[in-house]
Amino acid sequence: MSVDLHHHGDRDVSPGLVDLAVNVRLPAPPPWLADVIADSLRDLGRYPDPAPAVEAIAARHGVPPECVLPTAGGAEAFTLVARAVRGERPVVVHPQFTEPEAALVTAGRGVGRCVLGREDGFRLDPDAFGPHGEHADADLVVVGNPTNPTGVLHRATDLRALRRSGRVVVVDEAFMDAVPGEPESLAGADLEGLLVIRSLTKTWGLAGLRAGYVVGDPAVVEGLRAVQPPWSVSSPAVAAMVACLSPRAVAEAEAAALAYAVDRDVLVGELAAAGLSTAAPSHAPFVLVDTSPLGGTSVRPDLARLGFAVRRGETFPGLGPTWVRLAVRDPETSRAVAAALTDLRRLRRVA
Amino acid sequence: MSVDLHHHGDRDVSPGLVDLAVNVRLPAPPPWLADVIADSLRDLGRYPDPAPAVEAIAARHGVPPECVLPTAGGAEAFTLVARAVRGERPVVVHPQFTEPEAALVTAGRGVGRCVLGREDGFRLDPDAFGPHGEHADADLVVVGNPTNPTGVLHRATDLRALRRSGRVVVVDEAFMDAVPGEPESLAGADLEGLLVIRSLTKTWGLAGLRAGYVVGDPAVVEGLRAVQPPWSVSSPAVAAMVACLSPRAVAEAEAAALAYAVDRDVLVGELAAAGLSTAAPSHAPFVLVDTSPLGGTSVRPDLARLGFAVRRGETFPGLGPTWVRLAVRDPETSRAVAAALTDLRRLRRVA
Repeated sequence: MSVDLHHHGDRDVSPGLVDLAVNVRLPAPPPWLADVIADSLRDLGRYPDPAPAVEAIAARHGVPPECVLPTAGGAEAFTLVARAVRGERPVVVHPQFTEPEAALVTAGRGVGRCVLGREDGFRLDPDAFGPHGEHADADLVVVGNPTNPTGVLHRATDLRALRRSGRVVVVDEAFMDAVPGEPESLAGADLEGLLVIRSLTKTWGLAGLRAGYVVGDPAVVEGLRAVQPPWSVSSPAVAAMVACLSPRAVAEAEAAALAYAVDRDVLVGELAAAGLSTAAPSHAPFVLVDTSPLGGTSVRPDLARLGFAVRRGETFPGLGPTWVRLAVRDPETSRAVAAALTDLRRLRRVA
Repeated sequence: MSVDLHHHGDRDVSPGLVDLAVNVRLPAPPPWLADVIADSLRDLGRYPDPAPAVEAIAARHGVPPECVLPTAGGAEAFTLVARAVRGERPVVVHPQFTEPEAALVTAGRGVGRCVLGREDGFRLDPDAFGPHGEHADADLVVVGNPTNPTGVLHRATDLRALRRSGRVVVVDEAFMDAVPGEPESLAGADLEGLLVIRSLTKTWGLAGLRAGYVVGDPAVVEGLRAVQPPWSVSSPAVAAMVACLSPRAVAEAEAAALAYAVDRDVLVGELAAAGLSTAAPSHAPFVLVDTSPLGGTSVRPDLARLGFAVRRGETFPGLGPTWVRLAVRDPETSRAVAAALTDLRRLRRVA
């Protein structure tokens, strides 16, 4: 199946619609963070120096600086991985964020897919990558945790079990800071053969600034650093990284993660009341909804007419048009979108 | 000769020294531009949309939008060129800014050099790339105009003459907006086989923000676009591009260019009075100075003791430690550095 790997939620939003398509928590950074970024503009004549960001990332995750690379968002990190991490048989675990595969294809590399199914709750079976598994010879594995768009949180032990000699395991933790306590994060000790990609974009309303980073095996990180264009991370992004990784900001992110969990329960409950289920228990700031009880076509056009933008499922390998991803918003918005889906059921005359 | 192609002027500066090493006009953007950038922070939760920058660039240079690509500074543009522009025999014209060659090497490509000499005033002879020239088979040519660090402004006709079937000519015009009237710029009509790389960093004090762009043959630009990571240019950079390409800003840049010409004459005159000549008549906001009359070693350590940071010459292919690049500053600074060089002559007991 050929899908548009460059399709993202921002293209599923139209003016005037309530946006449940894009997974960014805030329309702009909070005032204390906006002030830090604004302050950095005073010194914009200087070339960027990533050193303070490296130090902040290393301190946040308790790793040495050589395990760390600031990047211009997660998107740059995927490009660097595609260019720098050798391997003849990269395999991407789907359904998940499509940019890692797109970056590999752009770099001219053949990509294998491990497509998880609903019947397994979109949950990874490490044996598929074991010595007797279907992907035994994969030398570069990319997996999201928690996974976009399924919301599935894989176990750290399962992901660590994917490692073997000559293989690099890349874990996209773009939404991990929305998981209270981050129990399954690999961005810490024992990084051999691992590369963890993190984002500050979603929690902090920084999608427009491009601020992410990599934490991983120093030998692999060194390879990424060697192909990164100079001054790739802007000075405002460096300032934002330092601020967002402070203990105070990490505590604020944790509070937001706890709030997400409460709001997500409301959304899932409202969807259930509307007769709809999610793909699997979500640990992310979004849920993947099975709309097949409402018919075989996408609910997106009808939902747009009712005022709501949601993220289409059909551009994720392994999914189809009856899947849509909904961002977790406040309870009022969740009730409203569930009511719209109930209306839609009536409109479509589904029993 | 092996040199550090990743060495840049920002690493030649130490705290407390008067900085003549970095070619940025302003320590920060002017207030009207800082306000525009600060305004863009209000909407930072949205993913960047480069469309307004594309439109502004196209309007500024009178070209269709498909000839245009905004980039995260010139540095990203060189990386995209190295990845996307095919060719078996890339040749870089030296001495010049080293990032284009570094990006090609990083992309695993063999690079030929066309090293210009002082005896020719560091001026390009297009015949070297003609059917009977030494570089007749070059299929990718990279040249700076005006050239960093020599200050030489090549003629547009000479650069256009480099084109031939199957060859892409990349002209780095990072400093062209400091040339009054830009008579030799190729960023306009007749772009077949051409790629022009521009920067807004130097004139507008935006080195920390990463704002540049490419104007060129639409087929070549499309290739660059295909390998550019998504959302590569941040929202504040998009806002800055739009503002810096307005007619008002272009007029302000022109005024700054005229002021540079006056200030550069002062610097060159003061250096001449100190017994030092420049490589060639400079049309750039810097001059390349021959310090060989002061002895065979670099003047940098002695000049640093006297309070001045200058850009070393020895990391530019074709130059050596007796060349230093000096940024054009105000007359007072120029007189002070010339006086320091005169002191240095006494210290070194040169006749």
